[in-house]
Amino acid sequence: MSIYPFILEIKKHVRSVEGWLDKASAHAEAKKYNTSVLLQTRLAPDMLPLVFQIQATCDQAKYAAARTTAKDPPSHPDTEQSFDELKQRLAAVAAYLDTFTSADFEDLGSRTISLPRWQGKTMTALDYFIEHAQPNFYFHYTTTYAILRNSGVDIGKRDYLGALSQR
Amino acid sequence: MSIYPFILEIKKHVRSVEGWLDKASAHAEAKKYNTSVLLQTRLAPDMLPLVFQIQATCDQAKYAAARTTAKDPPSHPDTEQSFDELKQRLAAVAAYLDTFTSADFEDLGSRTISLPRWQGKTMTALDYFIEHAQPNFYFHYTTTYAILRNSGVDIGKRDYLGALSQR
Repeated sequence: MSIYPFILEIKKHVRSVEGWLDKASAHAEAKKYNTSVLLQTRLAPDMLPLVFQIQATCDQAKYAAARTTAKDPPSHPDTEQSFDELKQRLAAVAAYLDTFTSADFEDLGSRTISLPRWQGKTMTALDYFIEHAQPNFYFHYTTTYAILRNSGVDIGKRDYLGALSQR
Repeated sequence: MSIYPFILEIKKHVRSVEGWLDKASAHAEAKKYNTSVLLQTRLAPDMLPLVFQIQATCDQAKYAAARTTAKDPPSHPDTEQSFDELKQRLAAVAAYLDTFTSADFEDLGSRTISLPRWQGKTMTALDYFIEHAQPNFYFHYTTTYAILRNSGVDIGKRDYLGALSQR
């Protein structure tokens, strides 16, 4: 089995964040505040703010596909300062994920990867996806959701899950 | 490929929450408040409190294994009122996941499942796992983490990710 369906799920979530930002913009307009306030909102003083959570959501989605397949992902230097710029990055990452096919994600258990900060240690690409990329993705995706909900933005579980493949 | 490694990852996370609760107990003791306050803490008035987030983390872990394999999961009636009771439930769910083997999770793409609220619609067991069980699990797992962090409990990314299979 290829993990490609899991990559498609991540892509769906990336696109969902674009919708969350539209609802956050509507909230800001109704309550008469600037969306730049939301970008700097945190759940705790020693947690990172919304703008970082969205950038990290993008990065983990990108790494989940690139690192497991030994490809060089496009660079995104974390310069976004507005909802529009974040939406462009989310769309760019979704488009990047579109460049992969199911065959790219076969046999991840026999590939080995390493990150500089692992000091020479390695993981199989499958373990990396399951234990690192995917939990990190969901960490930043859900923290993004949590900051918006904590701030009063009108999003719900359906916005989180997205459409289901039901017949 | 069996999705069993993904089930093991979920089990690891379930056990991680036990450690978070120990750190939350230490925080409550140091700050001289009762842990029952934390159990009722929410990120937003229209979100569910910590006790529910942990019960739902348990349920989604249980459902991820049971529903994809057409087994009847053990019943847990959401009666927990203390950290100790929640830790017992977390341990019970981890033990339940231990009753499965990799072979149980082969060929999920050819199995069909349905839930009462889907009004007759179905999903493949694989789609259910990827689009429903796993995202819901991470939703409640991360929201549990977010409530604790928002409350000042001293947990971090390492507590969230757990040990990695590095060599």
